[in-house]
Amino acid sequence: MQIKDQLKQLKPYQPGKPIEEVKKEYQLDKIVKLASNENPFGCSVHAREAIQAELEHLAIYPDGYSASLRTELAEFLQVSEKQLIFGNGSDELVQIIARAFLDQHTNTVIPSPSFPQYRHNAVIEHAEIREVPLLEGGAHDLKGMLDAIDENTKVVWVCNPNNPTGNHLSESEIVAFLDEVPAHVLVVLDEAYFEYVRAEDFPNSLSLLHNYQNVIVLRTFSKAYGLAALRVGYGIASEELITAIEPAREPFNTSRIAQAAARAAIKDQDFIQLCRQKNEAGLKQYQDFADRFGLYIYPSQTNFVLIDFKRDADELFNALLKKGYIVRSGKALGFPTSLRITVGTKEQNEDILSTLADLLQGIRA
Amino acid sequence: MQIKDQLKQLKPYQPGKPIEEVKKEYQLDKIVKLASNENPFGCSVHAREAIQAELEHLAIYPDGYSASLRTELAEFLQVSEKQLIFGNGSDELVQIIARAFLDQHTNTVIPSPSFPQYRHNAVIEHAEIREVPLLEGGAHDLKGMLDAIDENTKVVWVCNPNNPTGNHLSESEIVAFLDEVPAHVLVVLDEAYFEYVRAEDFPNSLSLLHNYQNVIVLRTFSKAYGLAALRVGYGIASEELITAIEPAREPFNTSRIAQAAARAAIKDQDFIQLCRQKNEAGLKQYQDFADRFGLYIYPSQTNFVLIDFKRDADELFNALLKKGYIVRSGKALGFPTSLRITVGTKEQNEDILSTLADLLQGIRA
Repeated sequence: MQIKDQLKQLKPYQPGKPIEEVKKEYQLDKIVKLASNENPFGCSVHAREAIQAELEHLAIYPDGYSASLRTELAEFLQVSEKQLIFGNGSDELVQIIARAFLDQHTNTVIPSPSFPQYRHNAVIEHAEIREVPLLEGGAHDLKGMLDAIDENTKVVWVCNPNNPTGNHLSESEIVAFLDEVPAHVLVVLDEAYFEYVRAEDFPNSLSLLHNYQNVIVLRTFSKAYGLAALRVGYGIASEELITAIEPAREPFNTSRIAQAAARAAIKDQDFIQLCRQKNEAGLKQYQDFADRFGLYIYPSQTNFVLIDFKRDADELFNALLKKGYIVRSGKALGFPTSLRITVGTKEQNEDILSTLADLLQGIRA
Repeated sequence: MQIKDQLKQLKPYQPGKPIEEVKKEYQLDKIVKLASNENPFGCSVHAREAIQAELEHLAIYPDGYSASLRTELAEFLQVSEKQLIFGNGSDELVQIIARAFLDQHTNTVIPSPSFPQYRHNAVIEHAEIREVPLLEGGAHDLKGMLDAIDENTKVVWVCNPNNPTGNHLSESEIVAFLDEVPAHVLVVLDEAYFEYVRAEDFPNSLSLLHNYQNVIVLRTFSKAYGLAALRVGYGIASEELITAIEPAREPFNTSRIAQAAARAAIKDQDFIQLCRQKNEAGLKQYQDFADRFGLYIYPSQTNFVLIDFKRDADELFNALLKKGYIVRSGKALGFPTSLRITVGTKEQNEDILSTLADLLQGIRA
């Protein structure tokens, strides 16, 4: 058998060490995981209630068109139902877009470091990958990305706010960028962390869809909505674009449970507001810590922070692990001296920052 | 923007008429859907219980390696954990295989009519599609499929038992076929209906994996296990093959709920046995009906029947719809004078067969 050559470049998923093993190894009572940008406040209670009502229908295929969720989300976003496409997490929308546009005769422009699935899917499709390094400080180099576009460019990925830095691009930056991108290039605005954004200059990307037919916006129920377990994300674009990419979507890609929970979650915007407020307060805890220790903290519009500790990230990661905290080492993310930490509850933030303060003072002493 | 040309050949998902509208249009109290080969007896009660325990963890990403489900399924099947890959339904495994092996320089051999996602995914990958018609009576033309293989063939799809005919291939037929398939060709044995099979000559495909490295077996929790709503299927092959295709799997493709329910479902084999027995009795109801009316019923090893009524399938479909029964017209399945009907509960079978008897006698009269 001959698997496609390009797949051989990619690593299969590497399972991490099970939490129970880590506990045993370091004799810990509990472990706090602040590594995957999950909502520490869970999800709307109404989402859980909505799932209960579906438990009698587990043998029945989900609605392949997500009709009820579609109607309610379209109403909430004030777009037409035909402007929406649903995915098994927004991960799957990245895959659908790559599958629909990229092949070996094309190239794709990707900011780097950014969400790894853009590159991963482009490799599988055998496209030429043009990675454009982030600017000092973590922002997208939009000028560099424009320069990388040519007649064979099919897709440009914009992660706003960016993972793993948290930086955002403003409406005027995005508009200036879109004005320069040729019409044959699809621009993906991945807004997975949209609900956490507080910056007033953040683009109103849905209104941009009226002027730019070559844009698709990606959002998800996995982050602020707190439904990561269920896998549901969505894309918003022109009806023509959505209709064109729909055949690349598997017909029953979102589960009945996910559709029901997402419908309930949309209706509970109070929960989202509460999480935004608590997250903002949490971000301030990390900012204060960084200021106190003179560390660079990337300006985050998300529920995570990337802090440059100016020392080996893996060593710091392991020191935290021994104390019962799992974060993301920047080493695998392209920031070898930084840690990416999910903003947790007030107490979780206090605890990990106190542990980090001890570690830093210990190293200095 | 330029979407790949081959996608333009494919139709986007067409949502059917909502059941509530059908009810209103034909003034029906209830509608019985026997169209999607769902388990009419639901799923194990333990699967529902297992979901309850997960409702506190909806904000947490699923285990991307499905480690617990993997361990328990490997134990149940008596294979190694590394021989398993999980998908968002076995639909996604078809996609993963197509993505890993097929491109425009390759061809793929597909029985026809069969499960439409083989062809759909091959079109997206731009592979040459070599469809080999089923034999009279509905069985795979394995000789014809062998003849269609050449040096550029990467994947051959075998649907056993076949959807939409229900026919099965025996162990000796499969072994003779595998002995002739060149080693560079992957053979997919799609056994979505495996748990319903009663034929004693059905292949023990897992033991065939020892002798044939170029085989992958696909199974699912969507049919007999009654978890179609949750989307979880799996593939079983050599460790080498699984490791090679793993990069084409999205990292969080099966939900936390699906993993938990599937684990509980495996442990309740009494439920599967009960469903098998009831399904076998149901198949006999359809066989008796076909005998009574002198109709050809394809020999089914599944939970559906394909019956050739020797008259326009869409007309019969619509006549049933007006009486409150949704089945699958053979017209879209390649059998323009047949209906595919899911075996329901004893009462559902009695009711639809009585309605069909009236319709047939009405037409004759």
